[in-house]
Amino acid sequence: MTTHNFVPAAYHHVLATLPPALTVESGDVVVTETIDANGWDKHGDKVWKAGNPMNGPIAIVGAQPGDTLKVEILSVTPSRATGWTRAALAANVVEPEFARQLPPRDRAIWRIDRNAQTATLAHSGGAGQLTLPLAPMIGCFGVAPAGGQAISTATSAEHGGNMDYRRFGPGTTAWFPVAAPGALFFLGDCHALQGDGEIVGTGIETACEVAVRLSFEKRSIVWPRGETERDIFTIGNARPLEQALQHATTEMVRWLAEMGLDLVAASHLLGQAVRYDIGNVYDPAYTVACRLNKNWLPR
Amino acid sequence: MTTHNFVPAAYHHVLATLPPALTVESGDVVVTETIDANGWDKHGDKVWKAGNPMNGPIAIVGAQPGDTLKVEILSVTPSRATGWTRAALAANVVEPEFARQLPPRDRAIWRIDRNAQTATLAHSGGAGQLTLPLAPMIGCFGVAPAGGQAISTATSAEHGGNMDYRRFGPGTTAWFPVAAPGALFFLGDCHALQGDGEIVGTGIETACEVAVRLSFEKRSIVWPRGETERDIFTIGNARPLEQALQHATTEMVRWLAEMGLDLVAASHLLGQAVRYDIGNVYDPAYTVACRLNKNWLPR
Amino acid sequence: MTTHNFVPAAYHHVLATLPPALTVESGDVVVTETIDANGWDKHGDKVWKAGNPMNGPIAIVGAQPGDTLKVEILSVTPSRATGWTRAALAANVVEPEFARQLPPRDRAIWRIDRNAQTATLAHSGGAGQLTLPLAPMIGCFGVAPAGGQAISTATSAEHGGNMDYRRFGPGTTAWFPVAAPGALFFLGDCHALQGDGEIVGTGIETACEVAVRLSFEKRSIVWPRGETERDIFTIGNARPLEQALQHATTEMVRWLAEMGLDLVAASHLLGQAVRYDIGNVYDPAYTVACRLNKNWLPR
Amino acid sequence: MTTHNFVPAAYHHVLATLPPALTVESGDVVVTETIDANGWDKHGDKVWKAGNPMNGPIAIVGAQPGDTLKVEILSVTPSRATGWTRAALAANVVEPEFARQLPPRDRAIWRIDRNAQTATLAHSGGAGQLTLPLAPMIGCFGVAPAGGQAISTATSAEHGGNMDYRRFGPGTTAWFPVAAPGALFFLGDCHALQGDGEIVGTGIETACEVAVRLSFEKRSIVWPRGETERDIFTIGNARPLEQALQHATTEMVRWLAEMGLDLVAASHLLGQAVRYDIGNVYDPAYTVACRLNKNWLPR
Repeated sequence: MTTHNFVPAAYHHVLATLPPALTVESGDVVVTETIDANGWDKHGDKVWKAGNPMNGPIAIVGAQPGDTLKVEILSVTPSRATGWTRAALAANVVEPEFARQLPPRDRAIWRIDRNAQTATLAHSGGAGQLTLPLAPMIGCFGVAPAGGQAISTATSAEHGGNMDYRRFGPGTTAWFPVAAPGALFFLGDCHALQGDGEIVGTGIETACEVAVRLSFEKRSIVWPRGETERDIFTIGNARPLEQALQHATTEMVRWLAEMGLDLVAASHLLGQAVRYDIGNVYDPAYTVACRLNKNWLPR
Repeated sequence: MTTHNFVPAAYHHVLATLPPALTVESGDVVVTETIDANGWDKHGDKVWKAGNPMNGPIAIVGAQPGDTLKVEILSVTPSRATGWTRAALAANVVEPEFARQLPPRDRAIWRIDRNAQTATLAHSGGAGQLTLPLAPMIGCFGVAPAGGQAISTATSAEHGGNMDYRRFGPGTTAWFPVAAPGALFFLGDCHALQGDGEIVGTGIETACEVAVRLSFEKRSIVWPRGETERDIFTIGNARPLEQALQHATTEMVRWLAEMGLDLVAASHLLGQAVRYDIGNVYDPAYTVACRLNKNWLPR
Repeated sequence: MTTHNFVPAAYHHVLATLPPALTVESGDVVVTETIDANGWDKHGDKVWKAGNPMNGPIAIVGAQPGDTLKVEILSVTPSRATGWTRAALAANVVEPEFARQLPPRDRAIWRIDRNAQTATLAHSGGAGQLTLPLAPMIGCFGVAPAGGQAISTATSAEHGGNMDYRRFGPGTTAWFPVAAPGALFFLGDCHALQGDGEIVGTGIETACEVAVRLSFEKRSIVWPRGETERDIFTIGNARPLEQALQHATTEMVRWLAEMGLDLVAASHLLGQAVRYDIGNVYDPAYTVACRLNKNWLPR
Repeated sequence: MTTHNFVPAAYHHVLATLPPALTVESGDVVVTETIDANGWDKHGDKVWKAGNPMNGPIAIVGAQPGDTLKVEILSVTPSRATGWTRAALAANVVEPEFARQLPPRDRAIWRIDRNAQTATLAHSGGAGQLTLPLAPMIGCFGVAPAGGQAISTATSAEHGGNMDYRRFGPGTTAWFPVAAPGALFFLGDCHALQGDGEIVGTGIETACEVAVRLSFEKRSIVWPRGETERDIFTIGNARPLEQALQHATTEMVRWLAEMGLDLVAASHLLGQAVRYDIGNVYDPAYTVACRLNKNWLPR
């Protein structure tokens, strides 16, 4: 196993079949620094155009369409002392007529304290100072999509992309369906913290150092999957929320079938034990996770 | 404070302005036995027509339209050794074309062990025996709706109703907007356990003994609210999921405003700390909860 | 056949199983004057509370649950020289962020010229005077719903209600599923004219004289149906639009099955010849019509 | 003005910034033959992979991002004696539980009679022979999208794409927002006829000869627009239907503003005179048209 320190020479605003910026063996670790959603790096310098610029693509030798890319998230560490958010709820997460009252979508700056593992908002309206614990995560990552598509890093689909799901943090393993030779992995748009739904349109956007182990498996999946210490989960990316939930649930049924559960057994288990999380309800495609405690899985 | 042991002479399939079956003082406790969603009682006898038959209405002396009914859920205890569920995912929670493969929606019987606090499915397809911990909850409760409406216990709205949210269990306090003199509280359709979304169309449906303390407050809310030991939450009931989420989020913004947070402060707090839960994605109106850890509330 | 001149003593804000205000024989004609959505009558006097007050209920002797009520709309004639509308698009029919720019929802008064059969807006912003041809229609009508429900005249469901579909005008026949003895027909909320979707939240709201022939048929339908000189149509009432469309399409498939078309034949016909109309995209339940030219029906 | 007879050497499954296959001057006419959605040409030979293969891209000299491409559809003529459709309603256009009953999605062959201008289904289940009048249209066309995206011809967005709207036929003018130098126009997937919504997932799919005049204008639009002899219309492409309708309505408001109508005037006009059409309710992004009779436009 090799550890690669990957310093991008350029960033990308689409996930697509592009020439690899780095090629690794299955099982290698990649350490890289991501810039924030607006293209600011760890020094606060504007190094790239806004819009979720991605590090990558990273090719994994031997990965072929129909395989699955396994991404073990080893660490996500904010590398800047500040992060930024938007100061107003998105218009689509409140009642339509209420949207008329929303404040401007100004940018607000949070202080990130890596020792205390907190983020603090210096100015926060009537709320006084607001301090929340960090929970770093990767906002946008995935692989080159199928059929020659180049999909904007504003959105997400079967290939992953801008899912903004807070459980994609350190300790989580993610899987993506490989659709291009080499898989072509991209990552970026890390958040120091984010609520469900990304309902102000941002997490706490900041530069991060990220370490991932990349490997491929000779099996096929349709939608992204994940595993934390306690749970497994599947991801659906679509509008409306109900369709995202349908994709996630259907992928979980497929996963349970691989474990030997028929549709009746899967229905019973999910019916009484499933958990749903909302990744984002802001991007062009929303993200829903279908999650299950590993205690209830067949042995 | 008085404790009333309420034995219904009849049940109801709508929440409406009906003659009270019991009248209590604000602050009184009511203990009552609910029958299950199909009208089976604790002995397994069919005592009423299926369709979420409700105990009630219970009038609270002095409650007026514009007030808020506070319902402290003191206990929800399964009173039968069995519960039942449906054996197939609902067609609307999987991809539309996948729905063609779903098994029949047979009824399955779970054994409820009150000592072990578990539910066990005797027959469960390829899964062998499935045992899950109990987490009793009230599936359907609320007050008479406004404007002379009589709303089916199949669905839900501002008045509450069939929300099927698993956090409506013992220890939770719920609030409902009073729309009729006396508030006219109804409850029923308890579940020994239920996954998010009620995606097989049922929780583990069983008879329960329920104790609630009922009181009213001279303040107004628009949508149901709740509080657990750790969190506060607001409820939106509507289709599609996005609209349910909009109602819940807007109600939470109103609640935070009552605590002194303006729209910018509320946006910052919710943006980075909110949690969303899906009560049900099965009934005519879906239920979404907007939830917030009380640690982050202004003091 | 008898013609009844029905003068309501009271109006209703729910469709429900209420004591009949008039009882007629199957095949009788009822002539009645409706007041407008805000309760103003043909003289411009406020005679009832706002919110789509309904004339009725009218019982049809012999109609039983499971039957179908046939409503032939013989005439709908504005009886006042003015009508009113709202002056702003509803927030839910524009892009969410655009909603912040919408003007206030002021009331605007149109002059109705019954000789010229036109409506003219005296003041219309940058548009100068706006004159449009009348196309009178019934905004809200239907029957008592099932199961003791009392459904607000703000919304609609299987029983009909506030559908705001412009093809429910003179010459159209509508059918509703009978759910209570006597059917219990209600009508009101007539519009002198309305665009698709009722996207300002109103048509041109005015008092009307309406004549309908009411009769029942010994057959069952699930959702409202209609027939014009050229087309047949079925109605779905639900949120979101896709669900309203699903109900309407499914009901049309059932209707074609009654005419002898199996699912393959119905798929071919609808696939290449169906038309969809949007009744309203404003009320709590939206309305979609699935429409088919009678030329293509089997003989 | 020049007329180009364009014979593609290759087809494309994405709309993207690809090297032009043909370059024309603004105002030139292009005549070209499209193959059908499955890659069958006018002789019934399989010449390309299925999935809406596109002719193009065609560059228009001088067109720049921010300009608008004008496409006058001069003719769309089926060039094969047969077309094909699917024999079952899509699962998402019927009630979810009803989807279990749908027949297989077999392919059916229609006879196209260019003299009679009809399409006839040889075998059509219980319906006997079905003959419908031709109404040829372009299913998928548009320009290279912004930001280096390559968008599948299965779907649609601001750039156009797979809209499946029956009013995109001969005599209609369409406009698209130019996002890449030269505009880069693509077209294909023509239908001899199609119902609203493309609810079996196809129109009558066939090869066509198409003539279009291409020119660019120095003005900006956000979503596709169109004009027929009687109407103007705007297009929204998104899921769910409500969002597609929101985009279309908002674009129409912008168009009316260009004609001098402020938001109040536009609200009044659209509120009482708008028509909505559903292009497709089948593709990943649905298509809704917001349509207005030109009689009501300001002079």
